[in-house]
Order: sequence, then C-alpha cells, then structure tokens
Amino acid sequence: LPITSEHTLLLLDVKKKPWEQKVRLHNRWHPDIPPVADVTEGELFRVEMVDWTGGRVRDDDSADDIKFLDLTITHYLSGPLRIVDAEGVPASPGDLLAVEICNLGPLPGDEWGYTGIFERENGGGFLTDHFPSARKAIWYFEGIYAYSPQIPGVRFPGLTHPGIVGTAPSVELLNIWNERERKLIETGHESLKLCEVLHQRPLANLPTSDNCLLGKIQEGTAEWQKIANEAARTIPGRENGGNCDIKNLSRGSKVYLPVFVEGANLSTGDMHFSQGDGEVSFCGAIEMSGFLELKCEIIRGGMKEYLTPVGPTALHVNPIFEIGPVEPRFSEWLVFEGISVDESGKQHFLDASVAYKRAVLNAIEYLSRFGYSKEQVYLLLSCCPCEGRISGIVDAPNAVATLAIPTAIFDQVSCNSPTNCFLDILKDVHFIYCCAFFHVLNKNR
Amino acid sequence: LPITSEHTLLLLDVKKKPWEQKVRLHNRWHPDIPPVADVTEGELFRVEMVDWTGGRVRDDDSADDIKFLDLTITHYLSGPLRIVDAEGVPASPGDLLAVEICNLGPLPGDEWGYTGIFERENGGGFLTDHFPSARKAIWYFEGIYAYSPQIPGVRFPGLTHPGIVGTAPSVELLNIWNERERKLIETGHESLKLCEVLHQRPLANLPTSDNCLLGKIQEGTAEWQKIANEAARTIPGRENGGNCDIKNLSRGSKVYLPVFVEGANLSTGDMHFSQGDGEVSFCGAIEMSGFLELKCEIIRGGMKEYLTPVGPTALHVNPIFEIGPVEPRFSEWLVFEGISVDESGKQHFLDASVAYKRAVLNAIEYLSRFGYSKEQVYLLLSCCPCEGRISGIVDAPNAVATLAIPTAIFDQVSCNSPTNCFLDILKDVHFIYCCAFFHVLNKNR
Amino acid sequence: LPITSEHTLLLLDVKKKPWEQKVRLHNRWHPDIPPVADVTEGELFRVEMVDWTGGRVRDDDSADDIKFLDLTITHYLSGPLRIVDAEGVPASPGDLLAVEICNLGPLPGDEWGYTGIFERENGGGFLTDHFPSARKAIWYFEGIYAYSPQIPGVRFPGLTHPGIVGTAPSVELLNIWNERERKLIETGHESLKLCEVLHQRPLANLPTSDNCLLGKIQEGTAEWQKIANEAARTIPGRENGGNCDIKNLSRGSKVYLPVFVEGANLSTGDMHFSQGDGEVSFCGAIEMSGFLELKCEIIRGGMKEYLTPVGPTALHVNPIFEIGPVEPRFSEWLVFEGISVDESGKQHFLDASVAYKRAVLNAIEYLSRFGYSKEQVYLLLSCCPCEGRISGIVDAPNAVATLAIPTAIFDQVSCNSPTNCFLDILKDVHFIYCCAFFHVLNKNR
Amino acid sequence: LPITSEHTLLLLDVKKKPWEQKVRLHNRWHPDIPPVADVTEGELFRVEMVDWTGGRVRDDDSADDIKFLDLTITHYLSGPLRIVDAEGVPASPGDLLAVEICNLGPLPGDEWGYTGIFERENGGGFLTDHFPSARKAIWYFEGIYAYSPQIPGVRFPGLTHPGIVGTAPSVELLNIWNERERKLIETGHESLKLCEVLHQRPLANLPTSDNCLLGKIQEGTAEWQKIANEAARTIPGRENGGNCDIKNLSRGSKVYLPVFVEGANLSTGDMHFSQGDGEVSFCGAIEMSGFLELKCEIIRGGMKEYLTPVGPTALHVNPIFEIGPVEPRFSEWLVFEGISVDESGKQHFLDASVAYKRAVLNAIEYLSRFGYSKEQVYLLLSCCPCEGRISGIVDAPNAVATLAIPTAIFDQVSCNSPTNCFLDILKDVHFIYCCAFFHVLNKNR
Repeated sequence: LPITSEHTLLLLDVKKKPWEQKVRLHNRWHPDIPPVADVTEGELFRVEMVDWTGGRVRDDDSADDIKFLDLTITHYLSGPLRIVDAEGVPASPGDLLAVEICNLGPLPGDEWGYTGIFERENGGGFLTDHFPSARKAIWYFEGIYAYSPQIPGVRFPGLTHPGIVGTAPSVELLNIWNERERKLIETGHESLKLCEVLHQRPLANLPTSDNCLLGKIQEGTAEWQKIANEAARTIPGRENGGNCDIKNLSRGSKVYLPVFVEGANLSTGDMHFSQGDGEVSFCGAIEMSGFLELKCEIIRGGMKEYLTPVGPTALHVNPIFEIGPVEPRFSEWLVFEGISVDESGKQHFLDASVAYKRAVLNAIEYLSRFGYSKEQVYLLLSCCPCEGRISGIVDAPNAVATLAIPTAIFDQVSCNSPTNCFLDILKDVHFIYCCAFFHVLNKNR
Repeated sequence: LPITSEHTLLLLDVKKKPWEQKVRLHNRWHPDIPPVADVTEGELFRVEMVDWTGGRVRDDDSADDIKFLDLTITHYLSGPLRIVDAEGVPASPGDLLAVEICNLGPLPGDEWGYTGIFERENGGGFLTDHFPSARKAIWYFEGIYAYSPQIPGVRFPGLTHPGIVGTAPSVELLNIWNERERKLIETGHESLKLCEVLHQRPLANLPTSDNCLLGKIQEGTAEWQKIANEAARTIPGRENGGNCDIKNLSRGSKVYLPVFVEGANLSTGDMHFSQGDGEVSFCGAIEMSGFLELKCEIIRGGMKEYLTPVGPTALHVNPIFEIGPVEPRFSEWLVFEGISVDESGKQHFLDASVAYKRAVLNAIEYLSRFGYSKEQVYLLLSCCPCEGRISGIVDAPNAVATLAIPTAIFDQVSCNSPTNCFLDILKDVHFIYCCAFFHVLNKNR
Repeated sequence: LPITSEHTLLLLDVKKKPWEQKVRLHNRWHPDIPPVADVTEGELFRVEMVDWTGGRVRDDDSADDIKFLDLTITHYLSGPLRIVDAEGVPASPGDLLAVEICNLGPLPGDEWGYTGIFERENGGGFLTDHFPSARKAIWYFEGIYAYSPQIPGVRFPGLTHPGIVGTAPSVELLNIWNERERKLIETGHESLKLCEVLHQRPLANLPTSDNCLLGKIQEGTAEWQKIANEAARTIPGRENGGNCDIKNLSRGSKVYLPVFVEGANLSTGDMHFSQGDGEVSFCGAIEMSGFLELKCEIIRGGMKEYLTPVGPTALHVNPIFEIGPVEPRFSEWLVFEGISVDESGKQHFLDASVAYKRAVLNAIEYLSRFGYSKEQVYLLLSCCPCEGRISGIVDAPNAVATLAIPTAIFDQVSCNSPTNCFLDILKDVHFIYCCAFFHVLNKNR
Repeated sequence: LPITSEHTLLLLDVKKKPWEQKVRLHNRWHPDIPPVADVTEGELFRVEMVDWTGGRVRDDDSADDIKFLDLTITHYLSGPLRIVDAEGVPASPGDLLAVEICNLGPLPGDEWGYTGIFERENGGGFLTDHFPSARKAIWYFEGIYAYSPQIPGVRFPGLTHPGIVGTAPSVELLNIWNERERKLIETGHESLKLCEVLHQRPLANLPTSDNCLLGKIQEGTAEWQKIANEAARTIPGRENGGNCDIKNLSRGSKVYLPVFVEGANLSTGDMHFSQGDGEVSFCGAIEMSGFLELKCEIIRGGMKEYLTPVGPTALHVNPIFEIGPVEPRFSEWLVFEGISVDESGKQHFLDASVAYKRAVLNAIEYLSRFGYSKEQVYLLLSCCPCEGRISGIVDAPNAVATLAIPTAIFDQVSCNSPTNCFLDILKDVHFIYCCAFFHVLNKNR
C-alpha cells in the first residue's frame, strides 16, 4: 500500500537548518532521548534525514567548510522511533528488530552530495599523514548516476545506503561504551603502532555537551545537561549498529538490530549516495540528505536466540545483515594489494589496517599516473563502489588486504589525444580511463 | 593452439613424493634457485603442482597429520620458470611480468582436498585462542562442486586459485625481508596488542635449512647450505607476490608481478579449490594438487612505469591484479559484523584485524546454532567463498569489518524433521540450511 | 544538478482523469500531434505519465474493468517533446536521438499496479485459446518489491521500465505502417498458422477516431478528424520504437531512436513496474502510472550513420539499446523448454512463437502443481522478471525456445504443513516455493 | 571421489575416426540401439565425445569441408548409457532422469573448434537467403578463452555445453516424430510464410540409412537395415531433449529428462565451446570434441509427477533445466531489436522467428560498419555468448525480438589509428571495439 502522509514520520524541509525542523533531530546515543513517533511492525513508512552535517557543507569549490567543521555537531539523526507490534506492545530489551530497507534515495530538489578530506588538525582520515589538508568534491546526481566537476572522467551508479542505523543503548551498554573508550584515550598512545601508522587522529570522542542536540529535550535544562554529559557520540559503529558505514546496506537489504530499551528507539541518518569500503577519507562517502522507506518486524526474544555475545556481557553483540538484490553489476575489477609492512618499511604482525592502508596507497599512486592528482584519487576511492578485502590474515607476519576498483566507473568516451595511451602497457584495462580522462580534461579547459 | 607435451613444463606424477618428482621442486624464495625451464612470452603453457604439504595430509578422518605437520617443509613450489621474449631475451629487473591464468584445476585422478585447523602449539590460526586443537575436513570434488563428509549439508562451486604465485627476490629484497622479519621477532612481543588478540602464534618464520628444498641444487652441498641459510620462507605474501592467498585470482584473471632478477624466475604452488577471504584457520583453503595453464607477457620497464614504491626503497612495491569473468554467481548473502572491541571487552583503535576476528566469531556462533559444531563452522568459513570486508576504517575508535556468506553454499534439500525451523525466525535465509542440515544428518546416521 | 520544477515537463495529478490533466496527453502516433514542450539536449528532465488505461482499472478484486476495457483508448502517452540542441536547433529527420533513462519509478502516493488477462472476445493474449476469460491481479509496492494478494507466496524486485518510448513517425512512415497492417488484415486469415496457434486475436488495429486523443488538438475539429483517421494505434512496437515492451530498458539504460520529424517528437508511456519477456497475458506487465528522469542527446546524421535499413526503404530501421547496470541479480533459474510442435501435435517449421507458446504452457502446467491455479501462473509469468529465449532457430524443423524463471521470486519462508514437499522430488529448487506457498495460503485464510 | 578409469565410460582416441573408436558411436535416435555401458545413479562418470562431424572439418582456412559436408552423418553421439539405481534396477518409462553436468571441456590435446556457415544448397542456416555461401572460422582455446584468426579483435570466455543430451525414444514416440515431420514435408511448402522468410531450407530430414551408425549393431545386417529405416535423425530437439542447443546448459546445470525406454538410454554429443542464442549460422556454435562429467539420479514416476503433456498424448512433454552458478559475468550489453516485418516490408503476425531474423540482421549491419565483413559478424553472432530474447509477443501485429551482445567480447586494446573512432558517436560502447579492431587488423596485415 502506498505510503500516505501519516506514514511519513519525519518529514523535513530541505531549506531549513536541522534545529529549525518541525520534528526535532538528535546527534547523540542515549536511552533517555524520547521517541518522536510510533511505528507499527509490518507497516511501510518513510523517514527523511538531513546530511550528516546538517547542511554546513556548501555546493561550491572551497573546502573551508570541511576544514573548519566542528565534529561535535555530528551526526544529525532522525528518530528515535518507538516500534510496537500489531497489539501496540513495544519491542523489548532482548528482542531483535528486523529493519527492511525497501527504498531510499536523495530528497527531491536536493539531488547533490559531497566528499571531503578532513584536515589533519581537525580529525583527519585514514591517510591523514599523507594528505593533511582539507579537500572537497561536489557530486551531482543524474538519477542513479553521480558525477563530479572536481574529479572529471568519472561517473558511476550509486549503491546508496544510510551510514547510520541503530537502536538506543541501555544505560548499562552506554556505560560500557564510555568506559572502554575513555580507557583507550588514557592508554592508547602507549601503543607503538598507533603513533606510526594511524597517528595524528583523535583516539575517541568522549561525551560533550557542545552542540549536543537531544530531540524534544530542551537545550539547557537539567535533563538536557545530564544526558548531554553521558550520551555517546555517533562517530563509531558499536553494538547497536550505529555508524557502521556498510556500503552494501542498500535497497532491499535487511538489518537485524538488537533491542536494548523498550520500543527499540530506532534512529537513522548519514545518508550516502555511494561509498567505498573503508570510507577512507573520513567524510569519504558522497554525503547527502535523503529518505528511507522502511518496514520493521519485532522478533521476540531474538537477541538471545540469534546473537551470541562475544565479550564479557550479554550486551557484547553485533547486528546481522542481509544484502539486497539490486546492487550495480560490475564485471571488470582492477585490484591493488597491500601487506602489513608500513611506509617506513617496518614489519607489522598480521595487521589488516596497515595492509589496507598500503593497498589504498598503491591504488592512489597508480591512478595518479593517469592525470589525476593524488587528492582526487583519495576522494574517489573513498566514495566509489570499490571493495576492500581482507584476503589473508594468517600468513604470519603479513596480513594481505586488497582494494578492488570497478573499471566501469571511468567514463568510456573517446579521446582526441590518445598518444598517452601508449604509455599504458596494461592496455586492456587502462586504456579506457586514460583516454577518458584526457578527453574530459580537454573539454574542461 | 593446444598445449602440447612440450608446453607442459612441470609434469608431475601424483603417486610420487615431492622429492621423488622428475622435475625438482623448491620451498624457499632465493635468487639463486636455478630455473627449471624457459617460457617464451605469449605461449600457453601448463604447470602442475603438488599440494602445499607434498602429500603429507591423508584422505582420512584423523587430524594427526595436520597436528604434527612440520611447517619447515612448506610450501612446495613448481618452478622457477625463466621468462624470455620472442627474441629470447629474458625479463629483466624493473620489468613487469603479466601472468594470465587461462585455466586451472585439480590433477586428473586426484580430485580431492582438505581443510585443517592447525594446533595452537604448531602455529595455530586466526582464532587459535578459541580453537586450539587440530581438526581436518576432507573435500571431494564433483566437477565444479566440493562436498565434505565432515561438514554435511554443504556443497559449493570452487573459486579455484593458486595460493602462491611470485617472482624470485633479488639479494637486496631478500635482505630487506630477512631483516624486517627478524626485527619483528625481536621486538614484536612488546606490543600489547599482539599478546591479547592474535597471541600464541609465531611472529615470523626466519630462514632455516631444515627441510629446505632448492630445486636442482643438491642438498648438503656448500651452495645449498649457503642458500638455505638465507632463503626466505614461503608463508607470508610479500613484494614478489608469493603467498598472497587472494581467492579471486582464478580462471581468466591476470597478475602483474614485479621482476627482481633476470628471467623473473616465476614460481607457483599451494593450489586451492576454494578459499574464504582471510583463510582463517591457516590451513584454511581446500588444499589440493593441481594444474595451471598460463600465458606470460613481459612489460619492459613496467615496474617503474606502473608500480610506485610505498616504502623506503624502489623495491617496496606490490603486484596488481585483474579479476576474471567466470566467478560463481551468488545473489543472497548473510553478513556478520565485527568492531574493534576484543573478546575481553577492550577497545582497540581502528584495528581491522580485531574487527574481522569478531565478525568471524559472530558468524561461528550464529551458524553453530543450527547443528554444526564451532570447529565445523571455523573450517567452513576458512574455505567457502565468503567475503571479508573492511567496511569502515575511519570512525574512531572502531574499525568495522564484515563477513558475508553466500547462503547458496548450504544444500537446499527438504528435511523430514522441520520442527527446528520454527526456532528460526530469520526465516527467509535460515530455513534453507537448517532443513538441509537435519536432512543430511539423518542420512549420515 | 537537481531537477527543478522547470525541468518537470509533464506534471500529472494522479487524482485526475487523463483528459482532465493540465498537460494534454495523446494516444496515437502522428507527425502532426504538436509538441507540448521543448527539451534541450544534455539537460535532465522529468516526465510523468498515467498508466496505459488512464486509471480505468481499479484496485479491487473484480476483473470486469479488464473484461470490458475499450482498446481504442490506449495507450495514453506523455509528450510529444521537441528536442533541441544547445543552440536551439531541433533534431532533424535522419538524426539519432539518444535517450538515457537516468531514473524512473511509480508516482508518489500511487504505489500500486495491476496485471490482467484480456478476455478472448476483447483482444485476448498469447494463450487466449487456453485462458479465454478476463482475470486481474493487483500488486502493491514496498519500495523495490511488489506483492499481490491474488498471487500469494510471491514477492520480487521490479525491473521497472516504460513499455513505450518512441519518436513521431513521418507521413511517409505512417503510410507504410497503415498499408502493411491493412494488408495483413485483408490476407492474414489465409495463413494456416494463424488460425491454429495464435488464433482468435485481432490481426491488427487500424486507425480509428474512437476515443482518439491528440494532445492540444481539439477533439471534433476538422484537423482532429483528419489526424484521427490517419494516426497509427499504439499497440505494436514499430520502427519508431513505440510499444517495444523490452523489460530490460530500465534505470541507466539508453535507447537510440531514429528521428523522422523535426524535433523528434518524443513520447513515452505505459510504465511497467515489472514484466516478463513476452508479456504473455497482453496486459501482462505490472501496469502503473509513473515518472521518468531522462537526458537526451542528438546525434546529427546518426540514423544514416548507424542504422542500416533492413527493408525496402530507408525508414525500415529499428532502435538500438544499451542495458543499465542496476538490474536485480538472480542466481538460480528454473528453465522450461518448448519446441515448435503445437498442442494438437502438429509440426511447425522453425516457428519460435509456437515454441515459446509451448515453453510457457509447460511452465504453467508445472507451477500449477504446487497450489497455484493456471490463471495465477499465467499472470505471474507475464509480469515477473522471467527470461524468454530463442535458444535454437536452425535445427529444422524445431525451433527451441526457453523460459527461465528466477526461483527467488518465490518467498522463502518456512511452512507449517510441509507434507507436500515430499511430492517434490526436484528438491533443491522446488522445496522453497512449495513451502512458501502453503505458508502464505494458510496465513491468508 | 575422483573419477577412476572405470568411471570413464566412453574413452575416445582423438586421433581416430568416429567409426574406428573402440566404443561404438551412433548418429540416430531409436529404442533398439543397444546401451554401451551401465551407470549407477549417484556416481560421477566421464563421457568423451567427438565433434558433431566426427573430425570432418579441418583446422585450416578453407570452407570446402563445410560446403560439402554430408548431413546424414551427423551427429555422432556417445552412448546410449543404461541408468540403473543402487539396487541395479534400471530407469523405467515414466521416470525422470536428472542429469547434473558437474564439469565439461575440450579433450586434452584437442583444444580448438570451428564455426561454419552452411551453403544454401546444403541445408543453409537462419539467414541463408542473405548469406548463401559456406564460410568457416577456426577458434583456438586459451583455457577459458577462445579467439579466431578469421575474426580478429574478439576474445571471449566460453559458456561450454553439450548441444545434444537426450534419452532414447520409445517406438510410440518415434512414430509420432516420423509422422509429424513427414506431414510437414508434404504440406509445409503451401505455407506462404516459409517461402518468404526462412525459405530454401529443408523442412525436415526424414530417416535414411545413408551413413547411419547404430553403435554395436553391425552395418548391413537386417537389424541394422530395419532400425536405419526407422531411426530419427538428430538435427531437431524433440520431446527427449536431443539437439536442444541451449547455450546455458553448462557447468553445474541440471537437466530433467523424461524416460521412454527401460534404462533411459542416455546419449550426448555435439559439444560446443560457446554458442549464441539461436545458433544462427546452423553450424553456428564453436564446435569441438570434448568430455563431460555427469551424475544421474532416477526420479521414479517423475515424468507423470512433473511433466504435464502439452499435446495429444502423454509423450508430448519437454525436459526441464536448472542453470549452473558459474556462467561468465558480463555487465555491458548492446541490444538490437527486430519486429515481425520482413525484409520486403511485409507485415507478419506476431512471428517471433521473423522478428529475431530482423534483430540479427540489424546487428550484422551495425557491426559490419566497424571493419568486419557481414559474414564475419554472422559467424560471430552464432557463437559468441549473445542473448536472443522474445521481448514482446502480444502487441499485434508485431512480435518484438532482441539480440543482446556483451561488449566485453571485443578485445579492449589500444589502437594506433584511432581516427575512425570519430565516426563513432555512440561513444561509450563502440569506441572500444572500433579501436580494437583496427589495431588487430594492422597487426595482422
């Protein structure tokens, strides 16, 4: 049955700021953020959302908005939604909440997005020691396709998904989060590895009342102050799902979320038109506002039945997913490999993060030989539908990670100066985008 | 043109031991291991290989052969092959060697394989702290399919590939390897992470003359002794390719290998009928003997042209791959997520290895609810065509890794005691193999 | 860039009748139907359309609306659009018009469709001698998925497409159409084949002024009368594209249409949520209203350059297509075969229509063994994403046609009366939907 | 378990002629051709086969062997095999025989094939009125790939399959065949359609003792003479499967064949490395010798249970298939359309054969603009993995057929005279093979 206006629970006005929306948004995880609406299981409903920054990034050529973006404002989430069954009984702790993503997309009239490299001094990204400066690419959508004036010669279909989908944590789970992340900050810098390989990044972002938005709860009240001091930040994915940034969580897929509080309190946000595995530049997906059409089912007792904890408490679980049937098909992939030897030549032990870093660097170096700047490639690999794999994790001391790039993202147009093609000896793959690139370059000059 | 006997360079007798083969094998990387044959670029040729242990694992129910397997014997490699161009000029250091895998498969009359869990005291695997004891599953092949008496209810098409394909290192590269791996052994145990998450594994395996096999070089000679003391072990993937264990390097794919010595000295081995990303139980693929049909092309100067070093020397490069067009198609995937919080509840910083470990543990816990033992699932996830992804690597402090399992690997037959299906609330995926499993169980009793 | 209101050329009000819409529709092909708007090549624009009957089929259980539907009203088309280049010069006869389908879908608030069997006395369908009575199935959309109360146990993602996309014919081409179709009516019944195999259908539908709608041209005027008498009906696909009913012409695909009149005069309509190859029950797709997001490019002189005529004039050409990258993925197909021997046992000579008829009948017979009525299966095979292939067309005297059905369209839920499964010996495919069906049946009783 | 020599039932010597093979072959369908071996259900066995002509087509540049090929010799089949269950009870009339194709491929040492256009006076093909003269292309295999010196610029992976797989007919079924085919010959020429559209082809090939080969039955004996006079020719696919030429019946697929005689008497032959839907040039696949690895299952009573007859007797059934999971993946397709208007401009009524003929002609015209001769394209479309679809079969009077060609079959190499690319305005698809072609052309001159 069609979604009627009553099933559009979180209608947004794309012209307004997040804090001006009629339905209040939130940007923290906490059990006491009150639900904004009820949803009955089995009914199809529509949720709208702002982009993760709430419109602070502009459709222009300057990366200054990325450079100075205050991370305490993110992510603006739509919800929480209280899920009830046909009899009106809400989901309970210990249940599983099955959420089917029936459809999603950009908001009509707002069909564009952006990808950014964060400044090293403002959080950075996976390769921040190589690319310390803020950059931005704007993407325009033509239906299923996106293209960017900042990265010419590229056009690809989106594997669109919400970066964040999650349930509210219980008090107990929230305490676990805050404690383990605080401990990391206190002791993490002693680890040799951190300083060398993924250094210069904040180890974690602990609760802060700065820019805290808690839905219906009035800013500045005592209740607000208490929650703001406790509420978890939204950056990392955790036991409740949250910012899992799984690029395949697209149309037709399903996520089974554990329920920690009465009603489940489902929130979602951070829509991505497209993202590469790893989302390497941090603000790396094509970030946009958007809508979701969802359908929920409550599986009573399902958390105990299906999610065995891996950790010290019954709360140490993770969601399960099923992938939908309409992902873009690609048949040719160019694959870059990395092993767990870092840029200084130092050997690490089965470290998949180091191996993946090297695979991404190899891909950047390679593609930058065909006319792109390294920053362009870094942005592109963050947001195009590339696959990051853990290929080998047992052959001590080297983890092997691979990054597979579908060559069809490069526009296959003819060029008028194909001379450079002859530099290209890996002909059957490279020829295509080499030509494509020069062609577009010429057009843009 | 058909491969004639003259193009079958390394013909094996599957009834004989590796050291009894007419063409001598080798099990180390060293520039001075002499080529066994010449190959001209553009010609299609056939290489045969023993399984990685040279036939030490038997087609029976006991895991004792895995338990006591001496790792100094591995991997038996076929080669080296000296690659020359049409004029007879060999590949030179600085060239790229493009190797196309035109076909591959098991050796006729030897259509079976095995998957093993290594004993904790004998090297272990990715989850050795959870599964310390040796186990073995035997797989029989029915054309493209494999099935195992030890893991009933499962049958899947192989994405067959050579675990090892590589060129010989130069002296300089060999020294880099030996030095960085020695340094890891000397200092690695200081790292907090290693002890807790991937502990109880040897950090690296340095050169040893034990069981060293060097092709045509006579064991016990002074030359043999010198090389044996220097030659790199074959366990890890490195700059020369080697044991990269990339499961998609199958029929129709291509690998671009850097050339470090004159003639390239291409070696290959460790054939896998199938492998899951990560090959988690260490002897985790379906290990077998097999054949390869290959075609090589020398790209003069290609190493400099296409492989930008990421590291302190010009040798710090990695191969590039293209994936072939005939991979098995799956359309339904069940996905398990892991974050970089370990089993003790401790928070790690963007550690993809920890996140992947948790994703694999989640999958094992889940599947073991449907009648399998955890060891069966551990073996299965090591060798079935599951995909291990680095989904998010920037949302500090949590890396998010995912493990996607194609549900079609579970045999879809009807059951005669479907009562247990009603335990299964994630119906649309699980019903299938739940039923399948009980059915097969009954048949096997 | 987003589609602004000025790029929404044909905005519809789904509550209104076709003839009440602000922008006038048309239901004939004729060069003199005036364009309703101009479109510049390269700009993304949106077109909305009513369903092919203009809302005459109701969302209810009765097939009476199908039974008595007057075919002279169909199809309601949106357009014509006059395509101009950046300088404002319109497309000219002899050009090619490349139309990219960037996106499409149902109209918001109108997310449902229907599939019908036409009554034998009212046009019938491919199997009208077997299924002479009108039937109807209603489909509701849940995002990418459709399900029907009339055909329980089935749910599948749509491969949505416009049944009709075409350019206006020139006078010359129109005359060719009218003449050859008139000749068929006059002489066709002499053909033995027609009477026996596809009998009882109108051979063609010649021009008629009944229910003729000609856009801006006022009904009843002399101009209207003249055009109405000449204008081609929209049922068959022809040289201008038109009702080609190609189910893969979906998101991301492109069609290259010949241009016969100045401005090209592009029209489109007859949106299908999904269709099986052949659209066998005639009103066989999931018919709906909908929108298209399109982008046009004029290829000057392209008709001559790329479309070689096959026929007596330069106008005897057909469009070319490219398929888009986001089709639903299926991996298991059940395939039914037919040969060109008809139901009476008579041998026909390499007749693919007869062979396909038999393949469809075989599929209907088979699926109707699992609880469906034959009419339900006939409807289902008309609209689900099944593939109809001409497998062999040379092995005299038998043409071989195949119909491949993706088994994933059957809902994979567990059943509570699986006894019937044991009737099913083709286990691995059939079990799934057999169970699915009984389960849903029970739920719906 | 590996296939041992005892499971290789029909071992061939590729150096010998069909009639010199130790195991006798046959080239007719008849219930009295005696089985050459027994096969137990569940066991994996290997069958080898000669190419359909038994080696009469040579690996050279002349098409004379095709031109004068005597069709009474074809097809050489391996078998019949008598299928028994574990208790030794043979399959019975009324059973279904499930045959799984576990693996297949060319015979080692014989890795090449050919595609031919048959001379109009010697049987012709689908387009024999356009291409009356014999032609031949030789294909060499490089593992999964084939390429041809006669059609440069093309290389593609094979979707290898046996053109013929079938069970022996009963006497009753044989009589039905012979009678209906005789009747066609007697009356078929009266049909207007035949003369104009698919004219100049023999309507059917009735039994003849010329070149009749009947396995163990000695030529010239009375028994031989009797059978030879009755036995059905192997050209058309029929109720028993036979020459169905379904290109997707490849690795991992399954066919469910009706059983008409005790033991089923399974025969197979006519191996194709690759074929396009329709096999349009008649000898249109890449014809080769080869092997099959098969596994059979007897479904007792399954013919009645699953195959509803469509025709006057219980024998008017057709096999059912399931497609395997390892077909080559293609993601870009160029699609040509045809409608049922013939080359003279005459309108036919919903005639899919005419529509498909026009689609194939359109494709030939198009591709021949890029440097190929029309005969080259005709050969190519016969054997490359193109898909022929019945898109619309209800929109009277036009059937719409489509031919989809995967663009990846064209070799994507760079060219040194790309000037012609600028003729190509359908850039993103065409550029690739346009360049490819000229490059290869230059190399070959």
